[in-house]
Amino acid sequence: MAEKKFVEQITSRDVDFAQWYTDIVKKAELMDYAAVKGFMAIKPAGYAIWENIQKEMDRRFKETGVENVYMPLLIPESLLKKEADHVEGFAPEAAWVTFGGTEQLQERFAIRPTSETLFCDFYSKDIQSYRDLPKVYNQWCSVVRWEKETRPFLRSREFLWQEGHTAHATAEEAQERTIQMLNLYADFCEEVLAIPVIRGRKTDKEKFAGAEATYTIEALMHDGKALQSGTSHNFGDGFAKAYDVTFTDRDNQLKHVYQTSWGTTTRLIGALIMVHGDDSGLVLPPAIAPTQIVVIPIAAHKEGVLDKARELKDRLAKNYRTKIDDSEKSPGFKFAEAEMRGIPIRVEIGPKDIEAGKAVLVRRDTREKITVDLESIEEEAGKLLETIQREMLENARAHRDAHTYVALNYDELTETITTKPGFVKAMWCGDRACEDKIKEDLSATSRCMPFAQEHLSDTCVCCGKPAKTMVYWGRAY
Amino acid sequence: MAEKKFVEQITSRDVDFAQWYTDIVKKAELMDYAAVKGFMAIKPAGYAIWENIQKEMDRRFKETGVENVYMPLLIPESLLKKEADHVEGFAPEAAWVTFGGTEQLQERFAIRPTSETLFCDFYSKDIQSYRDLPKVYNQWCSVVRWEKETRPFLRSREFLWQEGHTAHATAEEAQERTIQMLNLYADFCEEVLAIPVIRGRKTDKEKFAGAEATYTIEALMHDGKALQSGTSHNFGDGFAKAYDVTFTDRDNQLKHVYQTSWGTTTRLIGALIMVHGDDSGLVLPPAIAPTQIVVIPIAAHKEGVLDKARELKDRLAKNYRTKIDDSEKSPGFKFAEAEMRGIPIRVEIGPKDIEAGKAVLVRRDTREKITVDLESIEEEAGKLLETIQREMLENARAHRDAHTYVALNYDELTETITTKPGFVKAMWCGDRACEDKIKEDLSATSRCMPFAQEHLSDTCVCCGKPAKTMVYWGRAY
Repeated sequence: MAEKKFVEQITSRDVDFAQWYTDIVKKAELMDYAAVKGFMAIKPAGYAIWENIQKEMDRRFKETGVENVYMPLLIPESLLKKEADHVEGFAPEAAWVTFGGTEQLQERFAIRPTSETLFCDFYSKDIQSYRDLPKVYNQWCSVVRWEKETRPFLRSREFLWQEGHTAHATAEEAQERTIQMLNLYADFCEEVLAIPVIRGRKTDKEKFAGAEATYTIEALMHDGKALQSGTSHNFGDGFAKAYDVTFTDRDNQLKHVYQTSWGTTTRLIGALIMVHGDDSGLVLPPAIAPTQIVVIPIAAHKEGVLDKARELKDRLAKNYRTKIDDSEKSPGFKFAEAEMRGIPIRVEIGPKDIEAGKAVLVRRDTREKITVDLESIEEEAGKLLETIQREMLENARAHRDAHTYVALNYDELTETITTKPGFVKAMWCGDRACEDKIKEDLSATSRCMPFAQEHLSDTCVCCGKPAKTMVYWGRAY
Repeated sequence: MAEKKFVEQITSRDVDFAQWYTDIVKKAELMDYAAVKGFMAIKPAGYAIWENIQKEMDRRFKETGVENVYMPLLIPESLLKKEADHVEGFAPEAAWVTFGGTEQLQERFAIRPTSETLFCDFYSKDIQSYRDLPKVYNQWCSVVRWEKETRPFLRSREFLWQEGHTAHATAEEAQERTIQMLNLYADFCEEVLAIPVIRGRKTDKEKFAGAEATYTIEALMHDGKALQSGTSHNFGDGFAKAYDVTFTDRDNQLKHVYQTSWGTTTRLIGALIMVHGDDSGLVLPPAIAPTQIVVIPIAAHKEGVLDKARELKDRLAKNYRTKIDDSEKSPGFKFAEAEMRGIPIRVEIGPKDIEAGKAVLVRRDTREKITVDLESIEEEAGKLLETIQREMLENARAHRDAHTYVALNYDELTETITTKPGFVKAMWCGDRACEDKIKEDLSATSRCMPFAQEHLSDTCVCCGKPAKTMVYWGRAY
């Protein structure tokens, strides 16, 4: 049976999560590997998800006053080197251009691994007066980082992203923008991707190269591993001093600007797979699904079925992203394919349904079948899409909460990290040494110091000294 | 006077067209030069135009079944080399990556100058059967070509573009798609950018490296020079043979696919400037203008003026991309600024207007002032935007037609090319030698063999031998 074969090629999520992930990526036709190792060809089904992410996120950006720009692809080595921490963080994994045409370049250029240095160079010329501030710019582009280990969407040598870069007259305003964008990311993940996130601050060990403070949203995948899903950095005036980005303030004094940057990437597609997917394939939240409803005619050769299916498709397409599968494949194969692609609702319509004035809506997430009157199908489908979106978030949150543990001492931390995949909340003294030890012993990292702090105990889970902060710990992608 | 100073910094179009162009690019804040020579930082005002181009063109693409994808940034040298003409055309101007991180690469990688080779590599794996055809893929990205001479938007070492790449089962279908996309580009230029174009085919000398046939749309700039504004290539099965892109056809035979590619770039922003701009700055057609209407309060300190202006802005913003300039600058400065940015309509509203229940609409293209009733301002503004859009195209077409000449012999051709900037229609025998001579003698190139052929005479304008085709000749950007 064709449809069986289609499904059988998927490894079960519980047997081998990594292989299951790779299977979905390939079978749902999200991407393919490229000629250069670690690079991706993103296929239509994958790119359509990214387009929907872009569209909705960009809309939210613009509501907060963000303007889009485009900075160049290449960074002269001398420009990249001006901020010491930054170059240390990024130069070792940059791809270097040494020839322009047939001519060897006098200075080599890095393909942007991130564009702080380019924006600083630009702002140093573009900003003169307080009247020019704030600058709230963003770009959608690709970046290259020469990673050793790569996995589709999660870690690749080239990935697509947006990077926002802002400049402000005061430290307070920069801090406000940093948190505003973190919250925008968090709301986007929860409302659109149905992925619940922990909002918090990174420890110094984990912060971005050159940042004063890095804020993060952390999501929990189905296998209990964490995924950093978006970051927002406050640079203070560090970059401005390194790159001489100054302005004349109202008091006629020359001052350095305060800067932020914030980014999210095609990694979010990996998160969608790993939070919502199951053994039949992708499960997409309606708000992001390129196709929200697929109409599948049953016994399509019988008179009137195909016409009715097409009529339904046209009616539904007025309000929802709807397709029809009127190919010559068997209904079973079509069901399996629609499931693999994660389409939130499939509509089954056959001769008996038509006679009864009914159709069957099948939920991708729960497989629940709901028989509805043909007359009110638009309304019913709309309500169902809303229900699916809401319940997918609730279920992901319930899974996350059920896999979030507390550890009060090092034995508990060890036991939990090694036997119970998930987040572990534990107190921390603030010393790098304890973070290093936990990483060394347990391969777990501090995911963040959450905004929602709890007082679990008085002492650090690692060294027993007085605790300063509660931290989410976990193994991460 | 601030507003005077603002305007005075523009060189007149008739005095020095090249300097006028550069002045507009800078004063309208479309771009800035980047640290790497020949690269651009596209600023918000420039990028917003590109976003509108993308949005409308992408919508038209998708109506014809185009799906968006993303292919990798880098091409291994060995992959680029498989098609002889193609590598000869592009390798000499490629930027080469030789280091990944600290490690020297075993093979160097070109930053894509165009992605035929990447799509071929992808299709060779992705296409098996006639059921997989056609593939009608497109990507929005940037490409790098190490040009010697660069000018903002017109010729830069990195530019933004879209590149469509399709694969078909038959030569006929590939040819149909090639022409379909050329017509899509032409309609887009005329309907959206208000730029009339000549549709035609390139001579063999001017065709794309590796193509069987290249089709082009050619526009005439205000200074009488031509600008190639979009191209569509039919590759036949040449690339498919070089890259082994095959499929099993209905007859169970293994065959090579037939391919096309087609592209437009940020160069279209240059065309907008050079077709429509004047000595006060940019003039944008309403369909593409990021801001279609700007409301400028007059005597804004007087009671009620600012409130009324904001109310008007809110009303107009419901249907049109509308902004208000309620800054502390003088009205004159605001007028000059709105003109420099090319905003199609400015609305002036002051105490006397309010008293009379009127406002003044000022057209950017003609500077005509139209007094309208406040009550019906939405309707009047809407009608005016349509009128501007239509008349801008008509005016550009009239200018183009008035600068299109006929030459029947070489003396006429020489005289016309050297003294009358514009297109010259002349007959051609089809020999490369004549093209080479005309380029050598007159610095003019064959722009295209137009679809709309005319029989001007029986003999080639250059050699006097029997003519085969009418060609548009001209000096070009």
